[in-house]
Amino acid sequence: MINTERLRRFLEAKSTTRFILGVILFNAVLLGMETSQTIMGHFGPAILFLDNLCLTIFTVEIALKLAAYRLSFAKSGWNLFDLAIVVVSLVPVGQGFTVLRALRILRLLRVISVSPSLRKVVEGFVAALPGMGSVVILMSMIFYISAVMATKLFGIAKPEFFGTLGASAYSLFQIMTLESWSMGIVRPVMAVQPYAWVFFVPFILITTFSIVNLLVGLIVNSMQDVSNRSAVDETTHHRDEVLVRLTKIEDALSKLSRADRSLGK
Amino acid sequence: MINTERLRRFLEAKSTTRFILGVILFNAVLLGMETSQTIMGHFGPAILFLDNLCLTIFTVEIALKLAAYRLSFAKSGWNLFDLAIVVVSLVPVGQGFTVLRALRILRLLRVISVSPSLRKVVEGFVAALPGMGSVVILMSMIFYISAVMATKLFGIAKPEFFGTLGASAYSLFQIMTLESWSMGIVRPVMAVQPYAWVFFVPFILITTFSIVNLLVGLIVNSMQDVSNRSAVDETTHHRDEVLVRLTKIEDALSKLSRADRSLGK
Amino acid sequence: MINTERLRRFLEAKSTTRFILGVILFNAVLLGMETSQTIMGHFGPAILFLDNLCLTIFTVEIALKLAAYRLSFAKSGWNLFDLAIVVVSLVPVGQGFTVLRALRILRLLRVISVSPSLRKVVEGFVAALPGMGSVVILMSMIFYISAVMATKLFGIAKPEFFGTLGASAYSLFQIMTLESWSMGIVRPVMAVQPYAWVFFVPFILITTFSIVNLLVGLIVNSMQDVSNRSAVDETTHHRDEVLVRLTKIEDALSKLSRADRSLGK
Amino acid sequence: MINTERLRRFLEAKSTTRFILGVILFNAVLLGMETSQTIMGHFGPAILFLDNLCLTIFTVEIALKLAAYRLSFAKSGWNLFDLAIVVVSLVPVGQGFTVLRALRILRLLRVISVSPSLRKVVEGFVAALPGMGSVVILMSMIFYISAVMATKLFGIAKPEFFGTLGASAYSLFQIMTLESWSMGIVRPVMAVQPYAWVFFVPFILITTFSIVNLLVGLIVNSMQDVSNRSAVDETTHHRDEVLVRLTKIEDALSKLSRADRSLGK
Repeated sequence: MINTERLRRFLEAKSTTRFILGVILFNAVLLGMETSQTIMGHFGPAILFLDNLCLTIFTVEIALKLAAYRLSFAKSGWNLFDLAIVVVSLVPVGQGFTVLRALRILRLLRVISVSPSLRKVVEGFVAALPGMGSVVILMSMIFYISAVMATKLFGIAKPEFFGTLGASAYSLFQIMTLESWSMGIVRPVMAVQPYAWVFFVPFILITTFSIVNLLVGLIVNSMQDVSNRSAVDETTHHRDEVLVRLTKIEDALSKLSRADRSLGK
Repeated sequence: MINTERLRRFLEAKSTTRFILGVILFNAVLLGMETSQTIMGHFGPAILFLDNLCLTIFTVEIALKLAAYRLSFAKSGWNLFDLAIVVVSLVPVGQGFTVLRALRILRLLRVISVSPSLRKVVEGFVAALPGMGSVVILMSMIFYISAVMATKLFGIAKPEFFGTLGASAYSLFQIMTLESWSMGIVRPVMAVQPYAWVFFVPFILITTFSIVNLLVGLIVNSMQDVSNRSAVDETTHHRDEVLVRLTKIEDALSKLSRADRSLGK
Repeated sequence: MINTERLRRFLEAKSTTRFILGVILFNAVLLGMETSQTIMGHFGPAILFLDNLCLTIFTVEIALKLAAYRLSFAKSGWNLFDLAIVVVSLVPVGQGFTVLRALRILRLLRVISVSPSLRKVVEGFVAALPGMGSVVILMSMIFYISAVMATKLFGIAKPEFFGTLGASAYSLFQIMTLESWSMGIVRPVMAVQPYAWVFFVPFILITTFSIVNLLVGLIVNSMQDVSNRSAVDETTHHRDEVLVRLTKIEDALSKLSRADRSLGK
Repeated sequence: MINTERLRRFLEAKSTTRFILGVILFNAVLLGMETSQTIMGHFGPAILFLDNLCLTIFTVEIALKLAAYRLSFAKSGWNLFDLAIVVVSLVPVGQGFTVLRALRILRLLRVISVSPSLRKVVEGFVAALPGMGSVVILMSMIFYISAVMATKLFGIAKPEFFGTLGASAYSLFQIMTLESWSMGIVRPVMAVQPYAWVFFVPFILITTFSIVNLLVGLIVNSMQDVSNRSAVDETTHHRDEVLVRLTKIEDALSKLSRADRSLGK
């Protein structure tokens, strides 16, 4: 039977991590080469062999991790992230499933789970998400409402942009990013319905203002997180210290005056 | 006669709020389905019936609220907001009034008045508006001035963009969002009047700089609101406490020295 | 001879300021009407008469201000601003000078000098400018360097975009605003010179990064201005107070102990 | 033999620096003139002569600096920066090397190394870079992954945008800047593959969110740098002072009470 403790030490060793990082980067280069017809024409079989080798190494690594940590494996979100990426790559794909084969490059994302500093950045991103929750719900509502209205109002005039609810949502997303909103969409609509700007200009103002508020919220949250922690702790500690010391001095003084009074008697 | 107290408790109960929220969301889905010709072809009558049912529920709810709160109903802006949305939906519309029928999807906005966290976000947006007042007035002035000038300068060369005051204002809004400003508008104008950039480039710089200042103002205001309140209160409290305690100690000391002096006599 | 003191009081009276504000806004509406051919066809002479009346009022007001404040008139930048606007309007223009006639709408800017809150916003904008000085000089240099390089590298391939130094500067400004930079300019250039992206992509990255730094600088400056002033003053005052009080207590204690020692002898 | 001390003093004198700054600016104007065919037709030889004169002055200056500072010359990055710029200009170029001749305008960048305030801005930019490191690595990964996926998924449908890995990377950069992303690229792709938006919309959301986080990070870092330094130092100093003084008072009191007790015996 395998010694779990030794296995863990082996998996967490710096050299193991570095080796895995090297395999990930090498694999990424291979998958990049696969996009070139010329390279695949010359070295196709070699690249496919090396790609499979990399995948084998990842599979073995995940299997060893599962053996070493067992139930506590699932405690770290990053382990599940690695497992999902390897499993996606192992799904056998026919010639037609271009999408599943394109997903294999996602293996490069394992660099994040291997590198602590990248992990921190991604965790920072994820930590910022809940604070955005309400604004995201609000913006989804604005999008749904606007999509329904745009479909009803402009669906007949411009079916290529607002024919269905989905088409409207996509067109409104494009308008929110300000890409060709006027020349490409609103001016053509206005050629048919001259008052269309009454719908689109407020839509742009509201969505832009919402995004600005999202941004302001992110900045304010980050500032607070950073500035408060240590400084506030220290200040509170200092305040408590000063008040305790003042109390001591007062006690000493009241004892003194009592002593004095008793002396004076 | 109805017991007002009991009615209020019923209206404010969690289960009632949740039921209304469910009806709003269900109604939103129905109104989304209405945009699809295929779905309306199959289930048209059923959807219209359910839509009317939802509207009836909203009307009854508002009527009960009016009965329960009477004059204090108008004190909350959110109640008036709900009332306005229901009233708009109740206006009888002929076949031609597509716009009024499109407005019915605004009912989904009632989710905001039902959900406290969304309310807070919207109230935050509204609270940010007054601080933007002066900059908004300034930008309106810049827009009006620029629209008048653009109409006079380029109205004859490019009537489709700058023919009337309204067309100019719309084109300048498009230029401010930087959408096709050069390829679509300024380069064609410059083909006729080569010095047109003397007007448009400063216009872009000034409006962009104004928006940046608006953004900076919003960030600074939010930061202050957040950071100041509790921290400043606590600091002030601590300062007063320390000074009071120091005064006490000084008093005690002066008493002691007086006692000493009288003892020394 | 006119009483200067009384004249000043009259000019600074609230009713006078409000009257002038009214005239400015009325004049702005008139100048907006002038852009419409239909309105001018019907009421042309009346509008021109009223416009001249407004101009007369402004001229009289400025003349009275000059009489009332004499040399101290030039001390306020806003007075000079008003004077310049009125003088521009008084220049006699022939039919051909459309530009000078278009400048008359700048009179609306006098609203800023009349309204204190708008003045403050504009003064805030102007106050932010010096802090941007170095970055603006740097960006001008980047623009000049890039324009010279673009003219030499792409002037022959695409003379309509990079034929002269001026054309290059304008095209680079358009690229900096990200308007049609790829589809409209860089892709056509790359059709002739495939490595053109080596010049344009870094140009976009550098100018965007500079603007982001400008923005960050503006935010940081505003925050400091706002947060520091009162809070820091109060804190310093409190600190000095505490130290002075502690010194007093120490003195009282040292006196006490001396008295004690003398008592103990 | 040359006196090194005197040479240094001469090189660092204000008048020398100003003279060099003048030559740089004069040279920049000359290089700007070189882009105009008309000016070159009339004054070509004179401009080329003056350009060579400027280059000679720069070469002499660098040579003198090397003689004056010797090994410590390489200690300042700005010296190496100046050296590199002059060396690039000295490379003899044939008629064909338009690129190398275009690089000569980079000499204007020497203004930065001469002017202290511009140096500070650039050093500020460079100092902000390390903090962006992790996010930049992350974004590069997202770009590489997306480019490989886009090439595999859309390479056959739209070879002009996604034919090779390089073309995909460029197109994705364009999409990230939101330039013509929908009208120019995604809508044409969707005409062939209707679900293409499943790839592109998340790509836009993720890259935009990453850039927003980069910006937030820059702002938070700048704020901290500025606000903390002096204020925190002063606060810590004050706290230590107060605690030391309180300890003194306690000591004095405890001595007093001991004296009292001994007195009371």
